[in-house]
Amino acid sequence: MKINKLLVANRGEIALRVMRTAREMGIKTVAIYSEADRNALHVRYADEAVCVGPAPSAQSYLRGDAIIEVCRKLGVDAIHPGYGFLSENANFARQVQEAGLIFIGPSPESIEVMGSKLAAKAAVSGYNIPMVPGTPDAIDDREEAKVISAKIGYPILIKASAGGGGKGMRVVEKEADFDEQMDRAVSEAISSFGDGSVFIEKYVTSPRHVEIQVLGDQHGNIIHLFERECSVQRRHQKVVEEAPSAILTPEIREAMGQAAVDVARACGYYGAGTVEFIVDANLNFYFLEMNTRLQVEHPVSELITGVDLVEQMIYIAEGKELTIKQEDLKIKGHAVEVRVYAEDPANNFLPDVGTLETYVRPQGNGVRVDDGFEQGMAIPIYYDPMIAKLITYGNDRAAAIQKMIRAIDEYQITGVQTTLPFCKFVMEHDAFRSGQFDTGFVANYFTPDVLKTEADPQEIELAAVLAAYLLNTQKPNAATVQSVTAPSKSRWRERRLG
Amino acid sequence: MKINKLLVANRGEIALRVMRTAREMGIKTVAIYSEADRNALHVRYADEAVCVGPAPSAQSYLRGDAIIEVCRKLGVDAIHPGYGFLSENANFARQVQEAGLIFIGPSPESIEVMGSKLAAKAAVSGYNIPMVPGTPDAIDDREEAKVISAKIGYPILIKASAGGGGKGMRVVEKEADFDEQMDRAVSEAISSFGDGSVFIEKYVTSPRHVEIQVLGDQHGNIIHLFERECSVQRRHQKVVEEAPSAILTPEIREAMGQAAVDVARACGYYGAGTVEFIVDANLNFYFLEMNTRLQVEHPVSELITGVDLVEQMIYIAEGKELTIKQEDLKIKGHAVEVRVYAEDPANNFLPDVGTLETYVRPQGNGVRVDDGFEQGMAIPIYYDPMIAKLITYGNDRAAAIQKMIRAIDEYQITGVQTTLPFCKFVMEHDAFRSGQFDTGFVANYFTPDVLKTEADPQEIELAAVLAAYLLNTQKPNAATVQSVTAPSKSRWRERRLG
Repeated sequence: MKINKLLVANRGEIALRVMRTAREMGIKTVAIYSEADRNALHVRYADEAVCVGPAPSAQSYLRGDAIIEVCRKLGVDAIHPGYGFLSENANFARQVQEAGLIFIGPSPESIEVMGSKLAAKAAVSGYNIPMVPGTPDAIDDREEAKVISAKIGYPILIKASAGGGGKGMRVVEKEADFDEQMDRAVSEAISSFGDGSVFIEKYVTSPRHVEIQVLGDQHGNIIHLFERECSVQRRHQKVVEEAPSAILTPEIREAMGQAAVDVARACGYYGAGTVEFIVDANLNFYFLEMNTRLQVEHPVSELITGVDLVEQMIYIAEGKELTIKQEDLKIKGHAVEVRVYAEDPANNFLPDVGTLETYVRPQGNGVRVDDGFEQGMAIPIYYDPMIAKLITYGNDRAAAIQKMIRAIDEYQITGVQTTLPFCKFVMEHDAFRSGQFDTGFVANYFTPDVLKTEADPQEIELAAVLAAYLLNTQKPNAATVQSVTAPSKSRWRERRLG
Repeated sequence: MKINKLLVANRGEIALRVMRTAREMGIKTVAIYSEADRNALHVRYADEAVCVGPAPSAQSYLRGDAIIEVCRKLGVDAIHPGYGFLSENANFARQVQEAGLIFIGPSPESIEVMGSKLAAKAAVSGYNIPMVPGTPDAIDDREEAKVISAKIGYPILIKASAGGGGKGMRVVEKEADFDEQMDRAVSEAISSFGDGSVFIEKYVTSPRHVEIQVLGDQHGNIIHLFERECSVQRRHQKVVEEAPSAILTPEIREAMGQAAVDVARACGYYGAGTVEFIVDANLNFYFLEMNTRLQVEHPVSELITGVDLVEQMIYIAEGKELTIKQEDLKIKGHAVEVRVYAEDPANNFLPDVGTLETYVRPQGNGVRVDDGFEQGMAIPIYYDPMIAKLITYGNDRAAAIQKMIRAIDEYQITGVQTTLPFCKFVMEHDAFRSGQFDTGFVANYFTPDVLKTEADPQEIELAAVLAAYLLNTQKPNAATVQSVTAPSKSRWRERRLG
């Protein structure tokens, strides 16, 4: 069924991003918004826009019933949920379908299966998908646990069955330490949860987060669009992503791609989805989970494959067959994305919302900015404080990184602190540039003082000249006047960091 | 020799575009500016900037001596001339070299040869380059002229040797008309120029302007980067360009590419250059001239090949060998560029300079804006009134065109009239979409009234609701209030055209 009018049940950059593709496809767009987003760009961009409630998400963006009601009133055919909010809510997907509308995403059943770790594990069990090795159930027999640990190979992890938040979790580096760590884990588990049962799991050292983008249609065709490397994280959230990964070999890439397609097949998947893996230093990979929606970092995959993922999602939702074959897909070039959050990297990345007093996007060849703000707008406190995604594309990884540094330098934001200086630090860091890094990047390398900018020699000179001038002890000569009238790079930079 | 500091002897978008690549390559940048451009973006973007004189170009951007002097003072290694201004001035190129600096462009000799139609013709004479058929010299013998015309094939063109501006120029459709038209041409030539001698040339019907991008290094390697189609012109100036052309076959493409490489070889060319051809409806192509510089429309070639032309120009100027081989180059996707001029398309494309009261660029995947302005800036009357180049890229021509329409709709400019509505007209026109158009596009299809926007039904409805409300004859119900709070697409559009 052809989609003629599409509602985006989201806000900010992803709402705009989805609507841009819809408009290119000749599809009318409807925005929803909370009272806090009355003047947001996604509201202005849509053909129609409807306020669905007050600022808190539970009273607006999460009100599935109100959103379906808007669709009924405005003659909407389909809902794109974006990411977050209702995007992985199986009940909402079901209600959408029951209302006779198209949910642009997978079936409610796929969402449900992949939303539960146990159900997901059960679903993929017949597909030979590598999982982090360990005991499938809690283990009471200490000797059996030792046998299993030896088989898995040290270091291993002892995890409380009832655990969470790191409580009752112990790393065991070698068998000699096993008994002592087991005692501690069990006693901690008992004291914390009143339940001493524990799992054994392989402890993955130098873990990297690598995920595979998949696309499936409603006719059983599933392809993958290679990987995204998302190991640079702060507060366990991605902040720098790239495609392809700097470390995968073609063989591992193909094996991971096949595993991802199998995971998707295991749950009858259609739409765009992402299969997340943990990869160790020896390039062993283990299935973590599947995200049954469009991912924040999807643009890097779009840039290296030339595939518009939102366009494909819409075609798939219309019931069309995928026209892209696996063998047609080739990686071309390299793309890097940094997330520009209104956060203070010097203060443990705490949100720093406020008004964008200056907001000038970088431009030029190979630079893409996906955002939902313009100069003068306030970043609402109610939502994720992401301002923009800055994505660069080059013929190879080094070129994409150089372009990113140039684009970060060009990005002018004042009024809030942002993650940009941190992202520049990453781009310039040897570990990142060499490709040899893992999810410990921030913990291993980042301290706020690395962001302290050194005084620019030109600025010091300029200050001296001006001081001399004011004191009338030295009249500036023509050459000095020239450098006064010539704004230096540092002025540009100052605007951004100011 | 490695270039460490580069001066861009230009202004506006091309100065910024060159500096962006320089910065990505770790090269320091120096801007020059006229007094009228004191606050221009290219001045702010550069590491250093120097004012070289008052607004008129002859007193600033064309002052080669002053520019070379700036290079001496600031320790500049190389000059990139952009396009226009000093870019095709052989004397300037020579002075730059004599000052011990690198001119980022071809040798002064290449510029000289290609700057003269006669010298260019002589240079390529040994290379079997197709030229518009005709008499090489003025012809006096009418019977001989008839024989030649029959051989060339009608229609033919009679052109006064001393002519210009269309005076003494006659199209002869068939031999029966020859004598009459010849009489008129000769008498017009005598009365206009006091010289009755005329040439005979084939009259190319339905001519298209197709040009080939070439790159040559200083070691004799020359490659081409396929064609750009630039047939949509107003006032004999390009306004819409694309790559590849919608009509070339792979065989013609290869033949034109080879011819362009031969033209470059004929004049010992190095750097980036463009060989212009006229192509008729049967895909016969004829060499027109070579532009010995970076072309305004170069971005479309960058997007379909992945080659950064400015980067290549810099490498070549440093004396490096081309690392790109002809066989490595493949056309990937399709790119369209529209030039956004401050001109009134409804008033014969007359310049309409003023202040950019609103200036919001389109964003999103596959959209590139090369410009030199930001909101609030004035467009100086002294220079070419181009505000920006808007370039879109898609997997195929239809996708690139759809993206362009979306991007044009998103571009918000008020304060001056622009060519955007005209460009949208082109994108939506059947002749353009089918690929069947020629340099007569504007003359054949465009009249100012095609730009009149139809009233939006939603706007009419809204006006009626508001009128009713004000008259208090009808209280708006909830649904009506919703559409009042929901800004429609037309509001977005209104902002742009307002």
